Amino acid sequence: MRSTQTGAAGPIRITIIGMGLIGTSLGMALRSADEKEAPLGQIFVTGYDKNNRATADARGRLAIDREAHSLVEALRDAQLVVLAIPINEMRDIFRAIGPLLPSGAVVTDVASIKGQMLAWARELLPSGIEYVGGHPVVGKEQTGASGATPDLFKDVIYCLTPPPRTRQGAVDVVDALVQQIGAKPYFIDPQEHDAYVGGVAYLPFLLSTTLVEMTNRSPGWKEMMALAGPSFRDIARLAGGDPQQQRDSCMANRQAITRWIDDSITFLLEVREQVEDGNGEKLLDVFTHAHDAHEEWLSKRPNMRPGEAAFESLGRIEIERPSLFGRLGRRSRDQRR
Amino acid sequence: MRSTQTGAAGPIRITIIGMGLIGTSLGMALRSADEKEAPLGQIFVTGYDKNNRATADARGRLAIDREAHSLVEALRDAQLVVLAIPINEMRDIFRAIGPLLPSGAVVTDVASIKGQMLAWARELLPSGIEYVGGHPVVGKEQTGASGATPDLFKDVIYCLTPPPRTRQGAVDVVDALVQQIGAKPYFIDPQEHDAYVGGVAYLPFLLSTTLVEMTNRSPGWKEMMALAGPSFRDIARLAGGDPQQQRDSCMANRQAITRWIDDSITFLLEVREQVEDGNGEKLLDVFTHAHDAHEEWLSKRPNMRPGEAAFESLGRIEIERPSLFGRLGRRSRDQRR
Repeated sequence: MRSTQTGAAGPIRITIIGMGLIGTSLGMALRSADEKEAPLGQIFVTGYDKNNRATADARGRLAIDREAHSLVEALRDAQLVVLAIPINEMRDIFRAIGPLLPSGAVVTDVASIKGQMLAWARELLPSGIEYVGGHPVVGKEQTGASGATPDLFKDVIYCLTPPPRTRQGAVDVVDALVQQIGAKPYFIDPQEHDAYVGGVAYLPFLLSTTLVEMTNRSPGWKEMMALAGPSFRDIARLAGGDPQQQRDSCMANRQAITRWIDDSITFLLEVREQVEDGNGEKLLDVFTHAHDAHEEWLSKRPNMRPGEAAFESLGRIEIERPSLFGRLGRRSRDQRR
Repeated sequence: MRSTQTGAAGPIRITIIGMGLIGTSLGMALRSADEKEAPLGQIFVTGYDKNNRATADARGRLAIDREAHSLVEALRDAQLVVLAIPINEMRDIFRAIGPLLPSGAVVTDVASIKGQMLAWARELLPSGIEYVGGHPVVGKEQTGASGATPDLFKDVIYCLTPPPRTRQGAVDVVDALVQQIGAKPYFIDPQEHDAYVGGVAYLPFLLSTTLVEMTNRSPGWKEMMALAGPSFRDIARLAGGDPQQQRDSCMANRQAITRWIDDSITFLLEVREQVEDGNGEKLLDVFTHAHDAHEEWLSKRPNMRPGEAAFESLGRIEIERPSLFGRLGRRSRDQRR
């Protein structure tokens, strides 16, 4: 793979831009893999963060082989570039790296939104640069680089969203990266990815915010605070997340978000009608259906059951259809090598 | 109090109807209190459950002094009756006990809805019987009598909703019951209670159900299940509750529920407009406001912060206005005795 990829011998030169939780953990995971077993073989990792201190810290944690102090330095000889920065910085980075990337370089990212990333890549990366979107579905809440660990990606679903006509070699190198850090590659169309993530990650946030805002805006808020127990706590928790990050995610996934909001309103109106009409039978049907759907989900995700092992990674997931869009036709490792 | 209450000496005769988690725990808590320190003084607890086995079990757990095998037997000499049964059985019980209650008896209940209970009490209890609604805001999830413990009510907020013109002696005896089990009496108007509980307990359930139903109805559900992480888990949890119990709660609190649904829809439309218009600044304002409200709540409820002591009871709550409707003018213990 290395030769088709770069036409040069030596280790694969990986540059990670952004030394937060994900970027630092990624470097640690890549560098701690056993070289002989590792799908990428020998690697050399360069790290860059706009905050030089963060880059130095990552070096101290053995997440990178080399510190770069500028994008120019970071990208000079890069073959595989991983953008591990917040969504609101992505567009500027795509623009900035475009002229600096060596020909033949492959770019990937870790954003939880893939359609918008692909649009920016197409707009701002020069021809000859391949872009393969990625999204590790890391369960751990954002905690900054201090929480970085080489195990962060262990058994984690790692969505890959290469557009049609992506060079197979580019897909392979990102696929190998994902396997080297212990994650599970999951090929998916970027628009579908965004719709799904909108439903399971942003819709929960919006519903949580709805609860907190609605109760807080009520004149009885001070009394309600005292009466709020664990039900409120659990549903309200996400509203305590970083507002700017949530805003940026919503703004980069507007189509899916508005659709999920529309669906939610439709459903709430359905429930409202049954409550107002006193239609207890129909209401019971709806609640029973949701109850069973929740049980179905838990049965697929046994470690998510309350009181069982604390959730740290998305381990033990069985994906029924590993490649939703079979067109990528992943080759076996033997064929690839 | 005993003499004004009953005109007879001897222990206060308390009858608990329903030997589930709450009824059994209540008996345990009452009977384990130190008699000399206990606000109720000497007591004698009769237990009744339509399932005789449950009554016998409660006796075995020392939750009651005497097993009753019929409502007639249970109520024959009762002075204070506690209805600890599911909401959907309440109306029938009010109807059944009406003719059986000794004159002067005080009735209370533990349902999480108070307006409807008061309406039933007024409709179905004869004159001469006083009704004082109660609702212990127990954090522990329903687990049946096997989870009963005398500590269930320790430091728990116990809402009391006596209607205007309730005889002071009746309020006092229920107040003393609450104090004897270690809970904190919280006097509140029944309609306000229902509006507040609708917001902090049923609205969370409805939003949880919205999330699970919406994602489950999507054609991508099978894929989404794999991508759903801890955000989904937390918000989806309540949808896994007992559908019938949730239905009954919603049906008994229809006015508050429809109002909360309307408010939620209004809010979701507000967010939708900002997302569709790309109004990132306004969206950030809303998310920041919700974030701050969540922080405010946590600051009042330090034991609710994730990662801190596991939630078991609603301990350490500071109520700013212990009696929202000061009209009840609680007397000191010295005056009461």
